[in-house]
Amino acid sequence: MSRNSRRRRHSYDRFRRRTKPGASPGTIVPDPCAAPPVIEVIAYGPEEWFERQIQSLDELPALLATYPVVWVNVNGLGDAATIEKLGTMFQLHRLALEDVVNVHQRAKVELYGDHLFIVVRTIENQSPICTEQIGMFLGRKFVITFQERPGDDWNPVRERLRQKRGRIRNAGPDYLAYALIDAVIDSYFPVLDILGEQVEQLDEELTQNPRQPVVGRVHEIRQSLHVLRRAIWPHRDALAALTREHHDLISDETRTYLRDCQDHTIQIIDLVENDRDLCSDLRDFYLSAVSNRMNEIMKVLTIITTLLMPLSLIASIYGMNFNTKISPWNMPELEWRYGYPATLGAMVVITLVMVYFFYRRGWFRK
Amino acid sequence: MSRNSRRRRHSYDRFRRRTKPGASPGTIVPDPCAAPPVIEVIAYGPEEWFERQIQSLDELPALLATYPVVWVNVNGLGDAATIEKLGTMFQLHRLALEDVVNVHQRAKVELYGDHLFIVVRTIENQSPICTEQIGMFLGRKFVITFQERPGDDWNPVRERLRQKRGRIRNAGPDYLAYALIDAVIDSYFPVLDILGEQVEQLDEELTQNPRQPVVGRVHEIRQSLHVLRRAIWPHRDALAALTREHHDLISDETRTYLRDCQDHTIQIIDLVENDRDLCSDLRDFYLSAVSNRMNEIMKVLTIITTLLMPLSLIASIYGMNFNTKISPWNMPELEWRYGYPATLGAMVVITLVMVYFFYRRGWFRK
Amino acid sequence: MSRNSRRRRHSYDRFRRRTKPGASPGTIVPDPCAAPPVIEVIAYGPEEWFERQIQSLDELPALLATYPVVWVNVNGLGDAATIEKLGTMFQLHRLALEDVVNVHQRAKVELYGDHLFIVVRTIENQSPICTEQIGMFLGRKFVITFQERPGDDWNPVRERLRQKRGRIRNAGPDYLAYALIDAVIDSYFPVLDILGEQVEQLDEELTQNPRQPVVGRVHEIRQSLHVLRRAIWPHRDALAALTREHHDLISDETRTYLRDCQDHTIQIIDLVENDRDLCSDLRDFYLSAVSNRMNEIMKVLTIITTLLMPLSLIASIYGMNFNTKISPWNMPELEWRYGYPATLGAMVVITLVMVYFFYRRGWFRK
Amino acid sequence: MSRNSRRRRHSYDRFRRRTKPGASPGTIVPDPCAAPPVIEVIAYGPEEWFERQIQSLDELPALLATYPVVWVNVNGLGDAATIEKLGTMFQLHRLALEDVVNVHQRAKVELYGDHLFIVVRTIENQSPICTEQIGMFLGRKFVITFQERPGDDWNPVRERLRQKRGRIRNAGPDYLAYALIDAVIDSYFPVLDILGEQVEQLDEELTQNPRQPVVGRVHEIRQSLHVLRRAIWPHRDALAALTREHHDLISDETRTYLRDCQDHTIQIIDLVENDRDLCSDLRDFYLSAVSNRMNEIMKVLTIITTLLMPLSLIASIYGMNFNTKISPWNMPELEWRYGYPATLGAMVVITLVMVYFFYRRGWFRK
Amino acid sequence: MSRNSRRRRHSYDRFRRRTKPGASPGTIVPDPCAAPPVIEVIAYGPEEWFERQIQSLDELPALLATYPVVWVNVNGLGDAATIEKLGTMFQLHRLALEDVVNVHQRAKVELYGDHLFIVVRTIENQSPICTEQIGMFLGRKFVITFQERPGDDWNPVRERLRQKRGRIRNAGPDYLAYALIDAVIDSYFPVLDILGEQVEQLDEELTQNPRQPVVGRVHEIRQSLHVLRRAIWPHRDALAALTREHHDLISDETRTYLRDCQDHTIQIIDLVENDRDLCSDLRDFYLSAVSNRMNEIMKVLTIITTLLMPLSLIASIYGMNFNTKISPWNMPELEWRYGYPATLGAMVVITLVMVYFFYRRGWFRK
Repeated sequence: MSRNSRRRRHSYDRFRRRTKPGASPGTIVPDPCAAPPVIEVIAYGPEEWFERQIQSLDELPALLATYPVVWVNVNGLGDAATIEKLGTMFQLHRLALEDVVNVHQRAKVELYGDHLFIVVRTIENQSPICTEQIGMFLGRKFVITFQERPGDDWNPVRERLRQKRGRIRNAGPDYLAYALIDAVIDSYFPVLDILGEQVEQLDEELTQNPRQPVVGRVHEIRQSLHVLRRAIWPHRDALAALTREHHDLISDETRTYLRDCQDHTIQIIDLVENDRDLCSDLRDFYLSAVSNRMNEIMKVLTIITTLLMPLSLIASIYGMNFNTKISPWNMPELEWRYGYPATLGAMVVITLVMVYFFYRRGWFRK
Repeated sequence: MSRNSRRRRHSYDRFRRRTKPGASPGTIVPDPCAAPPVIEVIAYGPEEWFERQIQSLDELPALLATYPVVWVNVNGLGDAATIEKLGTMFQLHRLALEDVVNVHQRAKVELYGDHLFIVVRTIENQSPICTEQIGMFLGRKFVITFQERPGDDWNPVRERLRQKRGRIRNAGPDYLAYALIDAVIDSYFPVLDILGEQVEQLDEELTQNPRQPVVGRVHEIRQSLHVLRRAIWPHRDALAALTREHHDLISDETRTYLRDCQDHTIQIIDLVENDRDLCSDLRDFYLSAVSNRMNEIMKVLTIITTLLMPLSLIASIYGMNFNTKISPWNMPELEWRYGYPATLGAMVVITLVMVYFFYRRGWFRK
Repeated sequence: MSRNSRRRRHSYDRFRRRTKPGASPGTIVPDPCAAPPVIEVIAYGPEEWFERQIQSLDELPALLATYPVVWVNVNGLGDAATIEKLGTMFQLHRLALEDVVNVHQRAKVELYGDHLFIVVRTIENQSPICTEQIGMFLGRKFVITFQERPGDDWNPVRERLRQKRGRIRNAGPDYLAYALIDAVIDSYFPVLDILGEQVEQLDEELTQNPRQPVVGRVHEIRQSLHVLRRAIWPHRDALAALTREHHDLISDETRTYLRDCQDHTIQIIDLVENDRDLCSDLRDFYLSAVSNRMNEIMKVLTIITTLLMPLSLIASIYGMNFNTKISPWNMPELEWRYGYPATLGAMVVITLVMVYFFYRRGWFRK
Repeated sequence: MSRNSRRRRHSYDRFRRRTKPGASPGTIVPDPCAAPPVIEVIAYGPEEWFERQIQSLDELPALLATYPVVWVNVNGLGDAATIEKLGTMFQLHRLALEDVVNVHQRAKVELYGDHLFIVVRTIENQSPICTEQIGMFLGRKFVITFQERPGDDWNPVRERLRQKRGRIRNAGPDYLAYALIDAVIDSYFPVLDILGEQVEQLDEELTQNPRQPVVGRVHEIRQSLHVLRRAIWPHRDALAALTREHHDLISDETRTYLRDCQDHTIQIIDLVENDRDLCSDLRDFYLSAVSNRMNEIMKVLTIITTLLMPLSLIASIYGMNFNTKISPWNMPELEWRYGYPATLGAMVVITLVMVYFFYRRGWFRK
Repeated sequence: MSRNSRRRRHSYDRFRRRTKPGASPGTIVPDPCAAPPVIEVIAYGPEEWFERQIQSLDELPALLATYPVVWVNVNGLGDAATIEKLGTMFQLHRLALEDVVNVHQRAKVELYGDHLFIVVRTIENQSPICTEQIGMFLGRKFVITFQERPGDDWNPVRERLRQKRGRIRNAGPDYLAYALIDAVIDSYFPVLDILGEQVEQLDEELTQNPRQPVVGRVHEIRQSLHVLRRAIWPHRDALAALTREHHDLISDETRTYLRDCQDHTIQIIDLVENDRDLCSDLRDFYLSAVSNRMNEIMKVLTIITTLLMPLSLIASIYGMNFNTKISPWNMPELEWRYGYPATLGAMVVITLVMVYFFYRRGWFRK
């Protein structure tokens, strides 16, 4: 893995807050590398329809007056002026606008006067896994969404809007906000599918051959799950806040749908925790297998060494050059008629005794 | 274990959500491989009785009008049209119907207008362990159950209905729902019995001979317990919701029975957690035993090597071919009268000193 | 430990629910091996006294009419008819009766109409540790207790009743129930004393000589603590339910005593958790000691091998049989005047260099 | 550490409840080894002052009538009669009196009628660390304290009383109780200072030389922290009960001070948990260092063995005694002119190849 | 790392409470080494402005009467008299003043009559990481801050005040307190950035070469995270207390800002926990890699030993000096025509068999 891609991976974890400590709250300091904003507007009612990329924000008031629901989608956070102007036009709170450009927020819901500020994080189905912050304002007549980059999971929602599928065209901005959040949450499922399959494959490989150097891969999957986990957990509380607290911005009907969406969040958390547990189990299993294997290797080494060293010693002894002619005490065995066969015989006996000893200790059992 | 069976095992963990992210909520996309539905109906009152497999849903309204309680059991989720028609007929909520065919839900209870949607998961007593989702709608006059496959744990309930055993024929659909849930929960017990016996057997084997390669088996049991745990935990909250919240769909009498059922759930959770703890203990115990054993093997290796290497060195030294005739400095020992016995004696002394040294360090103690 | 005794140990963990999944709730299926019931009755008032083993349940109504408090103690759960008859006579709930014979309940308190059903588990001070379920019904005028086997911790309570010691004879059945529960809870203390002493002894042995194969004993103590822990934890909630909820079956005075009893439960839980922690610490300590020791052994092996192998190589080289007569290049050292002493000197120098090297690396330090 | 001192250490953990299971509640069975009680009385008002060790309890009623606040301090729990008499005189609840002599209570607060029973545990700044139970009764006009042994942390409080420092002489018994509890809690700080310094020193030693056998010392510190932790945790709940619940025995003013005391408790808990974490980290660090070191030792062993064994084999081969005269096939190398230098050269080449191989595998890198 | 710097590091962990156990509460005992106080005053209103370092506290009453908001910043806690005088002048509670000089408090908020006492801890961006306590009193017209040392994170706040940036000059002391707390909290971010980068770099190094002795560095980072964690956690509760409880000292507007500040705290906690998890994962990964590597080294050792020992034995045997002339039984092989080639051949065959055996066991696979 190149240095670059690793840097990339942790872009979510290792942000740099651009607002200096002690700066005035609500200061909007966009990332200098952020893309300039592209503004797409969809405005609709049960029968009305307007969809266009607009150049100037001044077109918005007319749209707000004409259409029941206006959805302003801002791709790219590179221009503070645009964001500030939107803030003034829709009376958005400055603290929320500051959070829009600091793209490292946890998912959350905050009520500011007559609008809700919602942060969700979408997951990008690529390797290494990274997340993108989506800021969303929900008012009585509008939904404003801010994305870091173009490219999102919302094309099916746009299609439903265009084709009047389901109840989306007849419902208010709260239902639109739900549909957008739901699409974001559901985008976690395919990523989890892939990770889950990787875990399963590792498990299979380990069970069949625990010698594979799988530790590195387990480590990488755990890292991805780590990123996922940090991203998804706060959604639980955020959605609970949306479904339980009684803002009149959200109708009871939509609440039922948000409850379903929260149920999906809990399923995702459950899957992530599950995969984390499986990873831990795999690592433990692997370490046990390595211990086991080391034990086996040590046994082979010890058996071989213990069997052959005494024999070598005997052979070395009879390789000494003491002068047998000088005295009868000097290695008389060398002059015996059956000295050699007796020595070999002694070696065989020693070997058998040792083998028996090892057998008794169970070293030949697996 | 073949690749196939392993795939099978995780069928619950590794589902694929067929509904695309961003799709309209309440879209019913059945699994293309799911079996076509077979619909069994049991309708009854204290004295009335009707039991038949029906071909057309159109027979249902008449039954609903005639019998106090109608139980519609749908085996197989392969046909969206049938499910939608049932949904329209009984005014079931679309989000609930979507969950019926997405067979990876956690156990839950949801109140939609005048009916309850209940999800429970039944366990299948086979290896590898897997779970099946059962969706259940409880209304004022009906219970509708959706199963993935034919074959269930409900034959004893059907028998009780047929033979008017207990209070089941006199009670309403809430009691029927309780009886069905109770049968599902109780089906966990035999599975846990088998797993528990396996754990106990492993414990026994380990205590008697900690050399067995039991790690793999512990790993497998842990996996099964993992599946069980994920399946059973949510029932606790679901049943708590049923017993505590005051829907008027459930009578106080039935609540008492559901409380008993919840008690069983807590017992099952307790058993699962218990077995998980035992598995962890077993693995730790095993690893300690392996460490212990490695230590013992290392001691044997070190003792043998340390005892024999110096002796070998001495023997090798007197096996050198320095020319003793050239000078009196060259290995005069070879020409000594008692050179050989002295050498052997030195070897014995060295050995004894080393043995004493090892004894002092306690290496001969266990 | 024989196979039998191990089986025994887990009798609490590995029960078999005799009620089939799907059976009618409240079905009383006694264990076919259970002993036939022996029924002891104590009936008393401040002055009245009756104590006898009765043969027929028909004597009970008369006693109930005569004495303020009647305590029916049933030893042995082998006869469904007796239990059912008692149930009818005292209007006990069928679900509670079912739990009486399924002797694997966790401690709990359940309110059924005008009586309380209480389950507690007593510990048996034997090895291996096992637990026994005690079912208890508390009504306005009676206490009924069901035990699996004869032999209990209640003789001191009976003695206090007989001798009018304390306030027990003047109080109602709630105080009797408290006294019985208190005796059961207090029976955990001596067992914990013994386990605690074993833990302490192990600690002492380990500190003085970490070579003992203590792992097995730690494992056994942990198993016992495991059984204790599972048994005692639910009492906490059960007693909290008794002290906090306001049944009028229990007087405020008795509540004060139950609070004291709950305090004992918390002390027991504290002790159990404490001992479990100590066991974990012991195991960790042991593993560290083994690692340490292995390190030491490896050092000895490596020092010996590294010191002696080069010397052996030198000796082997001069043991080669190259013909020194053919050329002056072939091992001229063998013909040198001081060849042998020079070789021995080289060996000593090599040894000293190596010893210095090891010394520098700190291998001779502990 | 001698057997005795270890016994001592766990005196808190391993008590023996003297009250038999099933005994009448409120039975006062003092420890037969406990010291006979010495009773010190301090009675005071804003201007009044009385301080003496009294011989007979009969002096107390007069003091109670004369002085606004009476503090009775009982050192030694060896005499049941004295305790019972105090109980009768001040109408103390029997269950509380029983707890006074069973010196293994967790810190707690219990309200009995018109007095509070408070248990705190003081720590003794000695090695091994042990704790002492202090029972305290707080009534409208009195504070009664029971200590196991003479010698306490209260001399500064007595001094403040004598010298009228602070508001203590003007306040009621509730402020006295606070001052006593505060002194007990603050006595934990110096002990924690010492333990903390030991942990830090161990850390320093480990960082500089991870070879020290520090495991034993970490184990000992953990044991001490264990005792501290068990002792201090329950104070948190006890003090919370004192500050939050509205007994009229404690004035709002005193509550503010108790809140400060509770804050100290939380600081102590924080420090204990912190030190426990540091100990775990140290152990993990040590184990990693040992693993590391073992790895290094194994590398040395393997390099030496692998380098020298092939050379030894070659030397041994040319030490064989095959008769070169019989056939030209028998070891002709021995008769070559450059046989010996060629052999030595081969050895050098083999060594270099192996060194290169090890270098490539990175075995010479640290 | 020098002994000194390590001492320094734990200055926060290992304080010494100067107040003796049992001392009167509210005793102000400053650290004898603490710097003498330097008092800076900023007093302002929408248009008014006063900023000066004052010499005498007697100037304060005039300022309080003239300016809407007075901020007194005390650098250095070395003079008890100054602190006491401030306490009297602003009617600050003695317990709070005691906490001001005991610079080891956890972050907290306490309400005393008509002022709030707030403790926060600022982090110092140096190595080793340490923290500094800041005590803050918030009254209706004033903010008083106590710092241990000169040098703080508040210059941007002062600049905003001077330049009338944002709403700070028009708001009350509650907004000033918020701005100061916010600056303190935000000072954690850069420190976390640096630590996070270190973790990431370690991860990268480990993935590319798991042989680095990174354990020591992981240990050091964990220590820093430990200090950070202890410091930041209590801020969460403290800020929750500020935002939720309804003191009228804090306006609803300011509460919204404090909520934002609390959100930052949660982000910091999230980052710290995240980095701790990553550190644990790194250590586990490292240990697995070491295990792996040890296994590999053991395999090399065992293969070499097992291959060469039998060959050595054979060579040694034929190096024995049995007299072949005495009997045909004594090593007739030495006299065979093809004895030597046959022996070499046997060695090759043995080697091949062993290599095959190792290959089958998979020892040549990675």
